[in-house]
Amino acid sequence: MKLLEERILKDGVVRPENVLKVDSFLNHQMDVKLFVEMAKEWKRLFAAKPINKILTIEASGIGIAAIAASVFQVPVVFAKKAKSINLDQDNYCTKIQSYTHRNMYDVIVSKKFLTKEDHVLILDDFLANGCALMGLLELVEMSGAVVEGIGIAIEKGFQKGGSEIRAAGIQLESLAIIESMNEDTGEIVFRAKNE
Amino acid sequence: MKLLEERILKDGVVRPENVLKVDSFLNHQMDVKLFVEMAKEWKRLFAAKPINKILTIEASGIGIAAIAASVFQVPVVFAKKAKSINLDQDNYCTKIQSYTHRNMYDVIVSKKFLTKEDHVLILDDFLANGCALMGLLELVEMSGAVVEGIGIAIEKGFQKGGSEIRAAGIQLESLAIIESMNEDTGEIVFRAKNE
Repeated sequence: MKLLEERILKDGVVRPENVLKVDSFLNHQMDVKLFVEMAKEWKRLFAAKPINKILTIEASGIGIAAIAASVFQVPVVFAKKAKSINLDQDNYCTKIQSYTHRNMYDVIVSKKFLTKEDHVLILDDFLANGCALMGLLELVEMSGAVVEGIGIAIEKGFQKGGSEIRAAGIQLESLAIIESMNEDTGEIVFRAKNE
Repeated sequence: MKLLEERILKDGVVRPENVLKVDSFLNHQMDVKLFVEMAKEWKRLFAAKPINKILTIEASGIGIAAIAASVFQVPVVFAKKAKSINLDQDNYCTKIQSYTHRNMYDVIVSKKFLTKEDHVLILDDFLANGCALMGLLELVEMSGAVVEGIGIAIEKGFQKGGSEIRAAGIQLESLAIIESMNEDTGEIVFRAKNE
């Protein structure tokens, strides 16, 4: 998506260890006008799918998912990071490995809000190694709901998450895919899309 | 706000220790159509104020604030809960006491996204004892920005936060104020508003 790629080139900052800082518009300060355009693009890309619910994970996915939910006209559920494992009857629970913090955390969704009637679009801000998405996919599977697709703002194409999810046959729509970035020059190269 | 009060009566559940569970529409599953109506009401209530930025805190405030930002047509910033105190040059930082978890946590906002040029509307889902809001007010004060007002979805009127903030002369607009709730009968009584 041209608009997002241009914004990344304008305001993104390449940091060591493959970190791309986009906190001025995506995940700390949020440019909701941009989010509306991103949501419209996902709506176009998933037009054939009978989506009735959006699922994301706290915290940085929530803003994107809320705006998308208002464009898709469906409710949105965010998976919560639990302090301690909460294996009660009321929640689906899984563990996700955090790449940033190098630890595991528990993630829960209430069974009330994810059922086998649901056709789910999963949304998140970033896709790198895919650990968070794998956890969300697991929660959806436990519930018996159908994953209709995954929408991502920025995919790091040089990490394995995207190719694994595509290999699993899931429709994955990343609005910007970074092929490479250079922390010395600040250069960012995007993958050309076959559209 | 009638629409929100009716929704609380329909879907809210009173739990022991003054807990009101509204996770089916406000802070786990989110009804963004309702959020749009709430945002329009805040827009009406703060029409006289030159608001150019919305501030909230992760995680459950983000959905409400993102939808409000799209109605106000301004960017939104969410304060982040930090793992460990991060007293670097780049962030404003304060400590907030968590009533639920009975501990303290650090909250940060990047100095880039809160400056003395900003006229801020603070939004959050709940107001009870006001600890989270006091922390956000402190962050705004550090930045030199102006707090134009505070918008809350549900205020627990029987706890001290609301009266303290009003006593400080800040325009506080809670869309539903709970005067009392009864965990045995499930009854919820709202404060009548002088409008």
